[in-house]
Amino acid sequence: MKNKTMPEKLQLVIFGGTGDLSRTKLIPGLYKLYKRDSLPEQLSVLGLARSFSSLEAYLQSLADSLQQENPEIYDQQSWDEFKSYLDYMEMDFTEDTGYNKLYKYLNNQEDNQAGQHCIYYLATSPDFFPIITNKLKEHRLSKSKEAGWPRLVIEKPFGYSLESARKFNFQICKVFPEENVYRIDHYLGKEMIQNILIMRFANMFFEPIWNKHYIDNIQIVSTEKKGIKNRGKYYDKAGALRDMVQSHLLQMLALVTMESPADMSTESIRQEKIKLLKTLAQSPSLVNIKKNLVIGQYKSGTIDKKSVPGYQEEKNISSNSMTETFAAVKLKINNLRWGGVPIYLKTGKRLKEKNVKIFVQFKADFHPGLNQDKAPEANLLIIKIQPEEGVSLQFNAKEPGSQDRITPVLMDFCQQAPDLQNTPEAYEELLVALFKGEQSLFTHWESVQHSWLYIDILRNYIEANRLEPEKYTPGSNGPVSAQELLTRDGRRWWDEEEFDAST
Amino acid sequence: MKNKTMPEKLQLVIFGGTGDLSRTKLIPGLYKLYKRDSLPEQLSVLGLARSFSSLEAYLQSLADSLQQENPEIYDQQSWDEFKSYLDYMEMDFTEDTGYNKLYKYLNNQEDNQAGQHCIYYLATSPDFFPIITNKLKEHRLSKSKEAGWPRLVIEKPFGYSLESARKFNFQICKVFPEENVYRIDHYLGKEMIQNILIMRFANMFFEPIWNKHYIDNIQIVSTEKKGIKNRGKYYDKAGALRDMVQSHLLQMLALVTMESPADMSTESIRQEKIKLLKTLAQSPSLVNIKKNLVIGQYKSGTIDKKSVPGYQEEKNISSNSMTETFAAVKLKINNLRWGGVPIYLKTGKRLKEKNVKIFVQFKADFHPGLNQDKAPEANLLIIKIQPEEGVSLQFNAKEPGSQDRITPVLMDFCQQAPDLQNTPEAYEELLVALFKGEQSLFTHWESVQHSWLYIDILRNYIEANRLEPEKYTPGSNGPVSAQELLTRDGRRWWDEEEFDAST
Repeated sequence: MKNKTMPEKLQLVIFGGTGDLSRTKLIPGLYKLYKRDSLPEQLSVLGLARSFSSLEAYLQSLADSLQQENPEIYDQQSWDEFKSYLDYMEMDFTEDTGYNKLYKYLNNQEDNQAGQHCIYYLATSPDFFPIITNKLKEHRLSKSKEAGWPRLVIEKPFGYSLESARKFNFQICKVFPEENVYRIDHYLGKEMIQNILIMRFANMFFEPIWNKHYIDNIQIVSTEKKGIKNRGKYYDKAGALRDMVQSHLLQMLALVTMESPADMSTESIRQEKIKLLKTLAQSPSLVNIKKNLVIGQYKSGTIDKKSVPGYQEEKNISSNSMTETFAAVKLKINNLRWGGVPIYLKTGKRLKEKNVKIFVQFKADFHPGLNQDKAPEANLLIIKIQPEEGVSLQFNAKEPGSQDRITPVLMDFCQQAPDLQNTPEAYEELLVALFKGEQSLFTHWESVQHSWLYIDILRNYIEANRLEPEKYTPGSNGPVSAQELLTRDGRRWWDEEEFDAST
Repeated sequence: MKNKTMPEKLQLVIFGGTGDLSRTKLIPGLYKLYKRDSLPEQLSVLGLARSFSSLEAYLQSLADSLQQENPEIYDQQSWDEFKSYLDYMEMDFTEDTGYNKLYKYLNNQEDNQAGQHCIYYLATSPDFFPIITNKLKEHRLSKSKEAGWPRLVIEKPFGYSLESARKFNFQICKVFPEENVYRIDHYLGKEMIQNILIMRFANMFFEPIWNKHYIDNIQIVSTEKKGIKNRGKYYDKAGALRDMVQSHLLQMLALVTMESPADMSTESIRQEKIKLLKTLAQSPSLVNIKKNLVIGQYKSGTIDKKSVPGYQEEKNISSNSMTETFAAVKLKINNLRWGGVPIYLKTGKRLKEKNVKIFVQFKADFHPGLNQDKAPEANLLIIKIQPEEGVSLQFNAKEPGSQDRITPVLMDFCQQAPDLQNTPEAYEELLVALFKGEQSLFTHWESVQHSWLYIDILRNYIEANRLEPEKYTPGSNGPVSAQELLTRDGRRWWDEEEFDAST
């Protein structure tokens, strides 16, 4: 969390400059940063792809996408100003000619500094990641005299298993040192996720009760309403455990449960996250995986009165695919702070609502004299990440007008308060961190490695036991067994409960 | 906090049925309870006074007051229904004839039960309290066969010192057993004050950190904008310490700092409050009263552009009166839970704002890595009693859009939320408790006694040292020394700070 500064000159090279990610996240993110006057003074953005032959066509297609996807931010004048940052080069990532052209491009820049402060952003299909990395080395594009440059940005997924991730990382290591590698987990760019450590360590309210003595359980939830869209080819190889749990959910888990770091430097925070993720492979819950894991797959059905295909009928998915589109896990962290506290993770597609939230449920250990016909509700701390951002507390108060009835009340802090409009989106935060060389928002290799170690144990169990995903109805709360995972512990999923409208 | 039930038949006798209290609190309270359908089935309210000779005149004067003071609740139809509960008798409280009449009135009631379930409410000047009590005994009006009846309700003040309070209590004791005596402290009828114990003992958020290890200091504040109005005769004998601190502020202090009671019965809660108040006379802060006490008196000046007289120019006040209209006290509670935690009390008239709030300030013990150019603000729990009712928490979060700047944010729970309109006012709650025989909202003699013991120590010091009240300007925050009481400890009065509008 140290304040690093942004270099004045910066060359951003996007492999896959016309892809989905570039269109919907990177270019809109850069454009919004431009409008907020938060770009490096001399930035040059070079898009690489095969789709267009001219800069004009490329720019037009980006403008079209922006107007279509983000009409609320688009205006002609600022776009015309902004587009002068953009350049385009036609390139086949597997062919040497393109890299030769790129070498010339970067070294022909006026002051020759661009090649030094250069960021390669791999926004392509993962299949290209190792190829591009190797070619960058071969063509002397990966070395600069200045430490920390050039930087390599890799989008998810980082491998499909511990083995493939290690293999891939070994290839990268040969080309870029770890300090120059930025593994994207866009959840880490979200405001409220960055808020977790400040919430925990800058408040006397929370840290003293942030342990097994006061916390009953933690629920980390990321559900989606949408299906797999046109990502079938990738998704069918991945599934929910690899696609969501290995990355986003375990990163959130690490932030919520890690110990206090030695200081607030990137390095110290990363070390604590790694330390926490390291304990997962020893989680007592792995002794009985059958009991602590639920996987599901969505059927065909209707959402918002529209009929939607089942997973097996989606494009590029085989009709007998056993890939899970839903996963719920119960785990325990075997350390002094958390011993015995169950942590429930849940993620899935085609569920009732889009919802990314962390629920910290405190023990219901109240004065016995206050028990009435119904015991008071447990205290809840809710960290809201999506679609709303903020914090809610549910606590107990006297029901107004009653003599002594106790009722749970909700207290909200909304990160998007009226005077705080325009909270930056995840990719804006990530781009700024990337420009500054601030790595705490990106995933360290050790984190990736230990996450895969844990996910592999689950995946191996599934495959060894031919565990079939339980079918669930689109728009539902997922498979029945996911309910039972909590109800048999006398608990419930808080994301499925009705709270005050503002939650 | 046990649920007692309301008797079906009930006779309420108000001594001083035409006085200020009856007009502005008791009759409006009863009327609102009627509208909420919360009165005992057969209630009879008898007003006693010398002011009117007929029931009609009495009712008309009450209706006039109600329309003038509480136009928002008045409507002709329900008033016409409600007034059938009311009766009136002309009476001089010092003469036997009136008590004979009253005896006949109560024993002539149809079923003769009225005399049993009878409540005498002393809403007169305190000078009459002992007289009326004695006469009730002489005229056999104080005894009934049923336990808990008749009940005697006594308004503030209960004495002017420990000695006078004891003398008065001794007189009462001879007539009514303690269990039948209801000493009014109308603060105890306020929703948020009743909420304190539920907040503390029904929430895992608060109790674990409710002690000297996590709390830096507590501030209990009750300030007023208005002057002494037409209460000069009483007020000049009392002053802020006797009028406000001895009763309201020490009762709030007891609720906030008492230990967990054995159960939630009236008796157990009262015992804990007494236990806490008992420690005050041994407070280490009494070793140096000069340093820990500030008294003040308001000068003439302007409030809201209107010029207002100084205290010494008010009606019934002598021009050299040394009575304090402001008091601030720093005290410490010498027990295991609170040892060393300063508690600041403040009350005064003609101050900047009407404000009754309790501020619990937590220690600013954050992760040192988070310290920036400015240390993060301390966490605050604010219990809002008047004019708004509710709870606020101030905690630290990431400033949206910044990389790592920390900013305090405020989270509100408003007891008067839109769906919870019509939170009952203090007197409504007190009347219901009184009808039910629920004594936890009234002050036990032992509480009164120990409060006086502490106040007497302060008063005796003032008199022995001829401490003069420091003059302060109307509409200000009070005497300069009151600021110094906190600034010399490196603290500040939270009620004088600007928070979010909703606080």
